[in-house]
Amino acid sequence: MYSDKNISLDTKHIHFTDLLKKDLKVVDQLIKTHINSSKLLIPEIANYLISAGGKRLRPALTILSSHFFGAIDARIYPLAAAIEFIHSATLLHDDVIDHSDQRRGKTSAHIKWGNQASVLVGDFLFSRAFELMVEAGSLKALALLSKTATIISEGEIHQLSVMGDINITPAIYFDIIYSKTAALFSAALQMGPILHEKSEKDIENFQKLGFYIGMIFQIIDDILDYNIKNTKMNKNIGDDFKEGKITLPLIHIIDKSDNKEKETLKNIFENKDYSSDHFTYILGLIDKYDVFDDCLKYAHDYAEKAYAILNLYPASLYHQALYTIIHQSLMRQY
Amino acid sequence: MYSDKNISLDTKHIHFTDLLKKDLKVVDQLIKTHINSSKLLIPEIANYLISAGGKRLRPALTILSSHFFGAIDARIYPLAAAIEFIHSATLLHDDVIDHSDQRRGKTSAHIKWGNQASVLVGDFLFSRAFELMVEAGSLKALALLSKTATIISEGEIHQLSVMGDINITPAIYFDIIYSKTAALFSAALQMGPILHEKSEKDIENFQKLGFYIGMIFQIIDDILDYNIKNTKMNKNIGDDFKEGKITLPLIHIIDKSDNKEKETLKNIFENKDYSSDHFTYILGLIDKYDVFDDCLKYAHDYAEKAYAILNLYPASLYHQALYTIIHQSLMRQY
Repeated sequence: MYSDKNISLDTKHIHFTDLLKKDLKVVDQLIKTHINSSKLLIPEIANYLISAGGKRLRPALTILSSHFFGAIDARIYPLAAAIEFIHSATLLHDDVIDHSDQRRGKTSAHIKWGNQASVLVGDFLFSRAFELMVEAGSLKALALLSKTATIISEGEIHQLSVMGDINITPAIYFDIIYSKTAALFSAALQMGPILHEKSEKDIENFQKLGFYIGMIFQIIDDILDYNIKNTKMNKNIGDDFKEGKITLPLIHIIDKSDNKEKETLKNIFENKDYSSDHFTYILGLIDKYDVFDDCLKYAHDYAEKAYAILNLYPASLYHQALYTIIHQSLMRQY
Repeated sequence: MYSDKNISLDTKHIHFTDLLKKDLKVVDQLIKTHINSSKLLIPEIANYLISAGGKRLRPALTILSSHFFGAIDARIYPLAAAIEFIHSATLLHDDVIDHSDQRRGKTSAHIKWGNQASVLVGDFLFSRAFELMVEAGSLKALALLSKTATIISEGEIHQLSVMGDINITPAIYFDIIYSKTAALFSAALQMGPILHEKSEKDIENFQKLGFYIGMIFQIIDDILDYNIKNTKMNKNIGDDFKEGKITLPLIHIIDKSDNKEKETLKNIFENKDYSSDHFTYILGLIDKYDVFDDCLKYAHDYAEKAYAILNLYPASLYHQALYTIIHQSLMRQY
């Protein structure tokens, strides 16, 4: 396996959960007030989802991008909350779509309350996200986030249209994970430089930085879904397989497998026969062809690019916290 | 049945489809360009829905509200398109939710392409709506429309939570149809006075005017769903019943029915037994208790209030077109 060569082990890691404790409290408060509704089902479902131990990674990135460029701009808080709402709305609609029955280790909302409520509460969170953006009052931020929401839905539709298609290329895979994950990370990191009216170059750097972090995050996520060790952590594995999502590990298996294996894989996906026997068969191929290293290589390449961008800027606590996020996105085991 | 007493039959009706022909072409062009996406399924579904003979009533109201206050403000066009997109997104998500298999006389999108695509294309249209609003560039319009989108989702959730509940009161029913229908009509009519920077009084008047028109529209819609004549027009009837939606005609039946009938109705909705025999039974009660007139009374009251607001303003073609919309909303047979 790759090691994280580009960050010295002497560098003290700064965890955003410590560094941004006060900021994230402000965001949590905004989330609480904006989840509120006179319609009883809404706070219940939204709270279930949003307080279900989410890491608040996207709000943290948003806030870091403001601290990074000087004294924090208070308009960053509603934007950070809005980004978490967009993310949560996507999860709710994704759960409906994917028939997945676990989300963050808990039963999915659509199982507990039904598909209908999940769709509608997703819509509610999405609308509230735009209300929060309007509160922030930056048309430039609004333009980027509404464009990003469009890209996310396009990515989900693209993913749907290639479901179970074993001819999917790495390029298509990367296009999909850019849309459904990295675009929002990228938007989050642009909020700071946009509010601080930094140069187009700074905005572009942070657009790329967010893109790289998002790509690392999703690639690792997709690897972990085939990582047998995760079952001990009470985490579902095999979700992507069961939904017919062909992610990076499978793309590499398909590429390396012999004709007989290819035929078997083709049949599995054509017949949508996502049994646990077939999942075990695929875990065997992952082991046989050692595809995790192939996948990790992409993540490490993105990390190098992300570090290179950070290196353009002077050191600071916030700078170090971003380093730590990249490092941990790459190294996380669950 | 009530007649439309408050409008003289001598008054020439001005149909918005004629009066706004050029304006609606601009809106249609915006709709076409913003439906476009590199992801193939999107233009197909969105186009199927949006070009499926929709009357463009909401865009028309939006545009009329600008003409009404002087030379048209070009920012009204993206706002009119955005409002149609929000409406279409709601329909797509509503179809998923309600399992209805007809929409505007065609097979619903969710039957043709599946629930998943309907949810995602709905999300796409919703995001594009916000992109269009950002193009218009009015934060005040954005604030109102994002708030309105929240109200719509709250209304849908409220409706879901009282599905099949025969204890629903007229007050709850009116609250729901305000949220799911009248709020967007009301927002549409406020776009003009907001862009033209008219007084708070003008904005309030148009907020009310839109509210009244929306209420009329939905009450009549709910009556028509029990109108046997509509079956000859190739229109579904009985959709609300089959979904367990207790609308105004049913509320009046429940109120007027004797104990034995009440018991039968209670059983039908508790057992969700929405058979055609039961629908025929309800049509019989509608006939027996003549509840259409009770329902129409509300619509006529709203129409009187709407006319009273219009009467505060001097006559013009656009003024007359609004009269015609109120009149036709009240009088429409399908």
